[in-house]
Amino acid sequence: MFKNFDDRKRVRFINSLSGIKSANLIGTISSSGQTNLSIVSSAFHLGASPALLGIIIRPDISPRHTLENIRSTKVLTLNHVNENIYRNAHQTSARYKREVSEFEACSLTEEYLENFKAPFVKESHVKVALELSREVSIKENGTHMLILKILGVWIPKRIMNDDGYLNIEDTQAVCVSGLDTYHSIQKLERLPYAKP
Amino acid sequence: MFKNFDDRKRVRFINSLSGIKSANLIGTISSSGQTNLSIVSSAFHLGASPALLGIIIRPDISPRHTLENIRSTKVLTLNHVNENIYRNAHQTSARYKREVSEFEACSLTEEYLENFKAPFVKESHVKVALELSREVSIKENGTHMLILKILGVWIPKRIMNDDGYLNIEDTQAVCVSGLDTYHSIQKLERLPYAKP
Repeated sequence: MFKNFDDRKRVRFINSLSGIKSANLIGTISSSGQTNLSIVSSAFHLGASPALLGIIIRPDISPRHTLENIRSTKVLTLNHVNENIYRNAHQTSARYKREVSEFEACSLTEEYLENFKAPFVKESHVKVALELSREVSIKENGTHMLILKILGVWIPKRIMNDDGYLNIEDTQAVCVSGLDTYHSIQKLERLPYAKP
Repeated sequence: MFKNFDDRKRVRFINSLSGIKSANLIGTISSSGQTNLSIVSSAFHLGASPALLGIIIRPDISPRHTLENIRSTKVLTLNHVNENIYRNAHQTSARYKREVSEFEACSLTEEYLENFKAPFVKESHVKVALELSREVSIKENGTHMLILKILGVWIPKRIMNDDGYLNIEDTQAVCVSGLDTYHSIQKLERLPYAKP
């Protein structure tokens, strides 16, 4: 049904099909010290042992400086977007020039934690320090999957359950549908481990 | 901080870090006609041209029959989970034996659309027919990324905007945090294309 859609319509439509998406800000720094911030809705869990995340980066749109910085410094931060900052976060998707830091242009605050080289977003409540493990080229469309090692995590103590689950709803975490629509979440239920 | 967690705690914790996750049911059929249904929270958008989705499959847990079926028949369906069926969907994560269809065991209905070989979930409102394009091994942890071609889409007409965006919130779509916690979504705002 989407074969005859024009390009923009097709992009909006196909982006809606995978379902609800995470909203994260990726913080990086160039080898010359220029910071960069980019919203991504493509972060996903890859594994707990070793602790790994994946993100998909499309180099021909806004995160191109992000990808260059990750290749050069090997480090990045992932910062959950919340209800207070989703407009600022969305604004990082504009095509700023290389010499502009999206932190400043979008009114978000750089934060440096425990000598980790890449900048965190102070206004975020869940912050993850990541290191590039491997880049996988998706030759089908020229995108790149980055396999990322989780080096450290900063969260408010109050959101962590004794069993390890994080109540990210209590941080006013937001999610994305399609390219540009932001939603808050409301807990329905935590379900027990399923048995036949 | 998570290095000393026991295995189950670590799994719950690391699964919470990527943020809010999509909730989808993957429908497959074996070469001998046995159907299978498996919840995944790892589906992600890969690209619009060509129209591609990705999913991560961990063969050592419940979706192992799903992976075997996809390798053998090359086709699968992706079905959004909604508020009416999230408990049934979660139940598909139990380790059923190969001869059990999760459709029957979890009270969900097989549906076949336009001669597509793999079964859809009748109770889902957004249904996508997919074909395996390529399997990428994640050697870091033995998981597999499946690159999937979008062949067809079935949605209620009322949720499609003229510009291609799908109001998946109007289908009572749900999302997941961590391993086992389900949330409904509430629209905050659709934002315009960002410019510097």
